[in-house]
Amino acid sequence: MYIDLNSDLGESYGSWKMGNDEQILPIVSSANIACGFHAGDPQSILKTLKQAAQFNVSVGAHVSYPDLVGFGRRNMDVAYDELFADVLYQISALQGLAKIAGTTVRYVKPHGALYNTIATNLNQAQAVIDALLAYDASLALVALAGSPFIEFARQQGVNVVSEAFADRAYHRDGGLVSRRQDDAVLHDADQIAQRVLDMIQKGGVMSIEGVFTPIQADTICLHGDTFGAVEIAKVIKQTLTQHQIQVRSFTDSMA
Amino acid sequence: MYIDLNSDLGESYGSWKMGNDEQILPIVSSANIACGFHAGDPQSILKTLKQAAQFNVSVGAHVSYPDLVGFGRRNMDVAYDELFADVLYQISALQGLAKIAGTTVRYVKPHGALYNTIATNLNQAQAVIDALLAYDASLALVALAGSPFIEFARQQGVNVVSEAFADRAYHRDGGLVSRRQDDAVLHDADQIAQRVLDMIQKGGVMSIEGVFTPIQADTICLHGDTFGAVEIAKVIKQTLTQHQIQVRSFTDSMA
Amino acid sequence: MYIDLNSDLGESYGSWKMGNDEQILPIVSSANIACGFHAGDPQSILKTLKQAAQFNVSVGAHVSYPDLVGFGRRNMDVAYDELFADVLYQISALQGLAKIAGTTVRYVKPHGALYNTIATNLNQAQAVIDALLAYDASLALVALAGSPFIEFARQQGVNVVSEAFADRAYHRDGGLVSRRQDDAVLHDADQIAQRVLDMIQKGGVMSIEGVFTPIQADTICLHGDTFGAVEIAKVIKQTLTQHQIQVRSFTDSMA
Amino acid sequence: MYIDLNSDLGESYGSWKMGNDEQILPIVSSANIACGFHAGDPQSILKTLKQAAQFNVSVGAHVSYPDLVGFGRRNMDVAYDELFADVLYQISALQGLAKIAGTTVRYVKPHGALYNTIATNLNQAQAVIDALLAYDASLALVALAGSPFIEFARQQGVNVVSEAFADRAYHRDGGLVSRRQDDAVLHDADQIAQRVLDMIQKGGVMSIEGVFTPIQADTICLHGDTFGAVEIAKVIKQTLTQHQIQVRSFTDSMA
Repeated sequence: MYIDLNSDLGESYGSWKMGNDEQILPIVSSANIACGFHAGDPQSILKTLKQAAQFNVSVGAHVSYPDLVGFGRRNMDVAYDELFADVLYQISALQGLAKIAGTTVRYVKPHGALYNTIATNLNQAQAVIDALLAYDASLALVALAGSPFIEFARQQGVNVVSEAFADRAYHRDGGLVSRRQDDAVLHDADQIAQRVLDMIQKGGVMSIEGVFTPIQADTICLHGDTFGAVEIAKVIKQTLTQHQIQVRSFTDSMA
Repeated sequence: MYIDLNSDLGESYGSWKMGNDEQILPIVSSANIACGFHAGDPQSILKTLKQAAQFNVSVGAHVSYPDLVGFGRRNMDVAYDELFADVLYQISALQGLAKIAGTTVRYVKPHGALYNTIATNLNQAQAVIDALLAYDASLALVALAGSPFIEFARQQGVNVVSEAFADRAYHRDGGLVSRRQDDAVLHDADQIAQRVLDMIQKGGVMSIEGVFTPIQADTICLHGDTFGAVEIAKVIKQTLTQHQIQVRSFTDSMA
Repeated sequence: MYIDLNSDLGESYGSWKMGNDEQILPIVSSANIACGFHAGDPQSILKTLKQAAQFNVSVGAHVSYPDLVGFGRRNMDVAYDELFADVLYQISALQGLAKIAGTTVRYVKPHGALYNTIATNLNQAQAVIDALLAYDASLALVALAGSPFIEFARQQGVNVVSEAFADRAYHRDGGLVSRRQDDAVLHDADQIAQRVLDMIQKGGVMSIEGVFTPIQADTICLHGDTFGAVEIAKVIKQTLTQHQIQVRSFTDSMA
Repeated sequence: MYIDLNSDLGESYGSWKMGNDEQILPIVSSANIACGFHAGDPQSILKTLKQAAQFNVSVGAHVSYPDLVGFGRRNMDVAYDELFADVLYQISALQGLAKIAGTTVRYVKPHGALYNTIATNLNQAQAVIDALLAYDASLALVALAGSPFIEFARQQGVNVVSEAFADRAYHRDGGLVSRRQDDAVLHDADQIAQRVLDMIQKGGVMSIEGVFTPIQADTICLHGDTFGAVEIAKVIKQTLTQHQIQVRSFTDSMA
């Protein structure tokens, strides 16, 4: 058995540091790397790409709305043509730097508000899909497990990968508990590791309503910049190793 | 006989328009396209790239310091690693958009203050050269005719193209007359066209000191956004046609 | 009789020029000046402020979402605390420059998407109101005529000024016809001038449904950067003069 | 006896945190607060201003070149008019936020590359001086102790405050040892505290050449974001207390 673990990396900007790229990279199998629109200057992106290549971690373009000060976390009502070109620009910039770093961009993961918005906004969803297909139809696209966007993209020939979150609470219908609720985020490393196991072995987790909810997870996101993030990631990795579950990127099985 | 005419294009930004891309593209053979650091948002860059492809005009990356408000015209004391990554990011982003537009980036032309600085600043010059060679050693590099930078880059295996300016006055030593002088820029279309002819047929122009100065011009830059720019460009094109001088990109003879 | 005419000015950015500030300022009585978030660099803002002072035109802060590439025209889901501080920052920056220019900020007009959003989004509306009251409760606030926001702000003690648009079509319920419709914007100078007259003399205009709709207009917005904008503005001014309607700022009657 | 201790604060940006404002503010008497050009978004600036007001710490505008990704540490060849307006914009924005926070901007300290450049570049120096005088001639200006800029500014009527650095090595001529040298920055808290004492009691410190060098220090800068910064600041404060040297802002003796 195997599972992909992914994390958001390359999110420093100039003199501002964020995350623990060097400590997370030995643990995960896929790195979602900022492209400069919500985080990441070219120099720091290149550095993270080189580290990802060194640890043999698969690389994805973590594309975003153009909003540095808001870290891409604020919904923006961008038009189709703007978003189409913005996504292309970001994948392209990252791919050029990746080549120099000795690796290559294998997938796209929309970041923050864009990730959430395209789950329901078909106009923006289409712009992301069209940009991906225009750039390289063999790129995978990471999307929220259970969201209707997955089927929408698959019907257009996109290789969609379902993503679950290790440290987030889920509702019985498979939806994420809103971050505005106190119990939205889990902090206990052992509990989080157990839920990762449940996702892999049982195909789902216990919801906050106390009912088991199935979650189709091709990849599980680990947060790299929260308090205790590195420690939690290590416990998850150990737990998986103990259960002889291999951590490998979903891109390994791609053409 | 033939000559390359180039122009700086794709320099709009969001709601702000600059230049006359659609009117200049039918005249020139090479388009230096902004990459987002001094000008150019992804959507407008993509539009200009599509137009360049349509008119079969060769495309170059007009790379710059990161300075939108200063339009890349202010010297910046950037470190080697910063500039190396910044140049790579810009070439990469443009190349990805160019592919979608049905064309490809064939050369790099540093913009504004960067163009002038690398003529003498070897540290920054090296960063630009290394970025180009790392990305694709077959890309050409456009540099100021007569500048020592040309030999510096050629010795490192870069395919350097010498650039002259149609509407700029030259000193007897081949240097450009500073824009701070009143007579630095020529405005008469016929006079400018004649100087283009002189560059091609006589290998130089009359300097402001009244002495002929030789200028090795593989490509001649036409300004696209100054007053009367389109009219001047048309007169130059007509004059060249009358003298049976073909306008074709220097990239046509590249591998 | 008298009316206030306002226009959006100071919207150049670095090398990119927008609008015809010098030609519009002699015509209008109030200038909504960009503060750097959707347009306007400090140097160009200062220049426009000096011209406004010279023409004795009243100055307002044209505050916006932070979105240069989108020109502040895209909705952004900013939090209360962000918007409160962003609005304060912009009013403050403009006021400091205004003092140097020999004038002072008398009112606030939200720009673009922010203008439209606060008409219905009470959270963002409250942030704008609170920022204005915290900075200087004597500042006026320009808002869309007929919008519920007007009453919402007045109940909190804000001096709200109702704004109508000279060149926009209205629905019978007083709402603006969406720009997505072909007939949303009027282009005939005489027709536009007549509608300005109707707003002043009859208290409303003919709606596109063919029914007279009342519009309470304390100030009428003239566009400064559209095709023919200066010519239209001149015709409006002439028409008002012929009817002995004085153009004076709504700020003239403020304390 | 008394001395002013200052520190660079408010340097977070959106989701990126920098420094330990809450721990440094109880120690220092003057806070140089970022204004948005090298660091500081409006919301985080306002937060730091409120904390400064709470701790009764004097506030200065830490004005910079417009260079977020370079953190204002890269020389920029900005023109007089650009710099004049940029400095005014920043002081103004900060002053407006300061008023809301219950405090007021009392001085200006140029940041990073601008601080170093104006020590020798008279054109840029003049722009900073003119902006300060135009805005409010009663503002103080913090400058490098021993730099010719101090006299240049004083002759124009500016209230200049000489600044020394607690953790930096000095040459015998009073110049700072370049950061490119290994021994440029001191890290031992007791040694740094002793040098602060020496500056106050002996009017200078031992240079790296082993000769005592006099340094006129009206204010001493403590770094807030380096490793061990808070600990060093605490030791300095304790040492000063033990020697009955009061920490109070240079602005206390201003009009």
